[in-house]
Amino acid sequence: MRKMLLIYMILIGALIIYIMQYRLDEKSAAWTEQGLKGNIDENYVMVTFQSGMEYWKSGLKGFEDAAEALNVSVEYRGATQYDAREQALVLDQIIAKKPAGIAISAIDSPALVKSVNKAVDAGIPVVMFDAEASGSKAYSFLATDNTNAGTTAADQMATLTKHQGKIAIITLTNQQNHKERTQGFEQEIKNRYPQMNIVAVENHEGDAVKAEQITTRLLRQYPDLKGIFITEATGSYGVGRAVEQSGRTGASKPVIISFDTNKETLDMIKSGTINATIAQGTWNMGYWSLQYLFHLHHGLTVPARSLSGIVSPVPVRVDTGISVVTQENVADYYAK
Amino acid sequence: MRKMLLIYMILIGALIIYIMQYRLDEKSAAWTEQGLKGNIDENYVMVTFQSGMEYWKSGLKGFEDAAEALNVSVEYRGATQYDAREQALVLDQIIAKKPAGIAISAIDSPALVKSVNKAVDAGIPVVMFDAEASGSKAYSFLATDNTNAGTTAADQMATLTKHQGKIAIITLTNQQNHKERTQGFEQEIKNRYPQMNIVAVENHEGDAVKAEQITTRLLRQYPDLKGIFITEATGSYGVGRAVEQSGRTGASKPVIISFDTNKETLDMIKSGTINATIAQGTWNMGYWSLQYLFHLHHGLTVPARSLSGIVSPVPVRVDTGISVVTQENVADYYAK
Repeated sequence: MRKMLLIYMILIGALIIYIMQYRLDEKSAAWTEQGLKGNIDENYVMVTFQSGMEYWKSGLKGFEDAAEALNVSVEYRGATQYDAREQALVLDQIIAKKPAGIAISAIDSPALVKSVNKAVDAGIPVVMFDAEASGSKAYSFLATDNTNAGTTAADQMATLTKHQGKIAIITLTNQQNHKERTQGFEQEIKNRYPQMNIVAVENHEGDAVKAEQITTRLLRQYPDLKGIFITEATGSYGVGRAVEQSGRTGASKPVIISFDTNKETLDMIKSGTINATIAQGTWNMGYWSLQYLFHLHHGLTVPARSLSGIVSPVPVRVDTGISVVTQENVADYYAK
Repeated sequence: MRKMLLIYMILIGALIIYIMQYRLDEKSAAWTEQGLKGNIDENYVMVTFQSGMEYWKSGLKGFEDAAEALNVSVEYRGATQYDAREQALVLDQIIAKKPAGIAISAIDSPALVKSVNKAVDAGIPVVMFDAEASGSKAYSFLATDNTNAGTTAADQMATLTKHQGKIAIITLTNQQNHKERTQGFEQEIKNRYPQMNIVAVENHEGDAVKAEQITTRLLRQYPDLKGIFITEATGSYGVGRAVEQSGRTGASKPVIISFDTNKETLDMIKSGTINATIAQGTWNMGYWSLQYLFHLHHGLTVPARSLSGIVSPVPVRVDTGISVVTQENVADYYAK
């Protein structure tokens, strides 16, 4: 009798285990019932140049957030300098470890194109974000549409200067993204604001001290200068300093519009020296870079190929968006 | 004794159930361990105009594939005609049902802008794909960069005509996407191929018969015409017919480059009448539209807001890519 009961007990226990296990299996049976989910062993790498820059922080957060959502791992690697050979070397070291995918903000150089192509040829998906090495085999480029961003900066400038007066641009005249910002700005002023005119386009080479010197000179040369568009954040500090030291306040202070959201720029917006800055959708760059790499790694875009031939497996160019930061919303943009 | 055993049995059984249930709970506890997964009750709707068109098929497949991957439901609705009021009416009916999100290929009209804004204001995420109602509150626009596509068509034309000779363009001169294709084509010829020149830009109004008549006239007017770029697929059949009936073959047959991949165009590529056509990344449009809607519905882009202020929660403009179809790869492009 006792033995019988023991056997019953074991049989019932086994049945319960079987049923529960079955339910578990059902939960993880098909990709489609499981949602989009990778393996924690899958390692995706983000690569930049000038790895210390505050600017990369939000893009990396997007990359990490996508990794968390998709249950995969990420790693961040960077060249310390703005040096194409150093960055290509870092990339080559990453390729040797065969990661699941690479997102790179690349210096535009043949050395980088060569390394990117090496990765793609070895079956490692690569997408570029923020800055592009042109002519590579990378699957996608996710970045700000800089011409549009320049247009938005011009509209903001027009509003703040009441559509009239002399405007100066301080920029990196040899760098593609800054050329586009300048062109977008110039075109919009030319097309829509006949009472505004651009009196100078100066090159500060990304240097805050140089930006300060140029601004001081421009303020002497054009006593009625109404506005300055500085196309990157390091220089904006110099422009702000020069205007502060010129002693021009109130209606005689030129409007300053900057680009990006480093602490110095945000502080000067808070204090009123800089009127506005253009914030880029860097979180989007990181988040959707990882999504594309994940889809490429898992062959999830294969239906695109079978249905309509070999069209790009992921979108080829993505404008990740911008927003305008002013004194009203500046508090939202400090890093948390 | 027997009672004791029964109690043991019940206790052990309860323990096993408890342990297994715990494991189940763990599996579905956090979003992050589950991957990206929605609820089958979530209903996302794709809306187009001219709902019968073969062209929408691949975009809808992308939308469905994303729904399968993310475990959500989709529905397709369309206006039967190219009629803004009809499409706005269809959209209003969908909004009344409060779906989880709407992807729309929209006629560019104030009626559509109004309906799209109504949806967004009601908290229903909307993205646009393929065709845009400009100035709406939709979160994103996923489409072909038509200027780039025109550039690619010009490069293909240059290769096939050995970089020289007279070229004609047949297009819809009043429609934005076709204007962009034409501009991209013209600019590229002007900038890179000095021995080619565009002798005519004609409007066939999307009509095959008209395209045939125009082509017949052009072939008489320019006996040495080397190439024709027809910017959409309905007209390409007419162009092909006219060239076939002109009896020009071999070296005297003008090169024809078309757009899109309907059956008639693919058949004429197979037979050699049309030399190439531009295939659009329509699967990408549908797939990433649903991904964006899913992310907006679930607030998964909130980190973008908290980290760097209210920058666009999803990318604002997406170039979904193209590819060139020729006799070599035409078999891949027939609908399966």
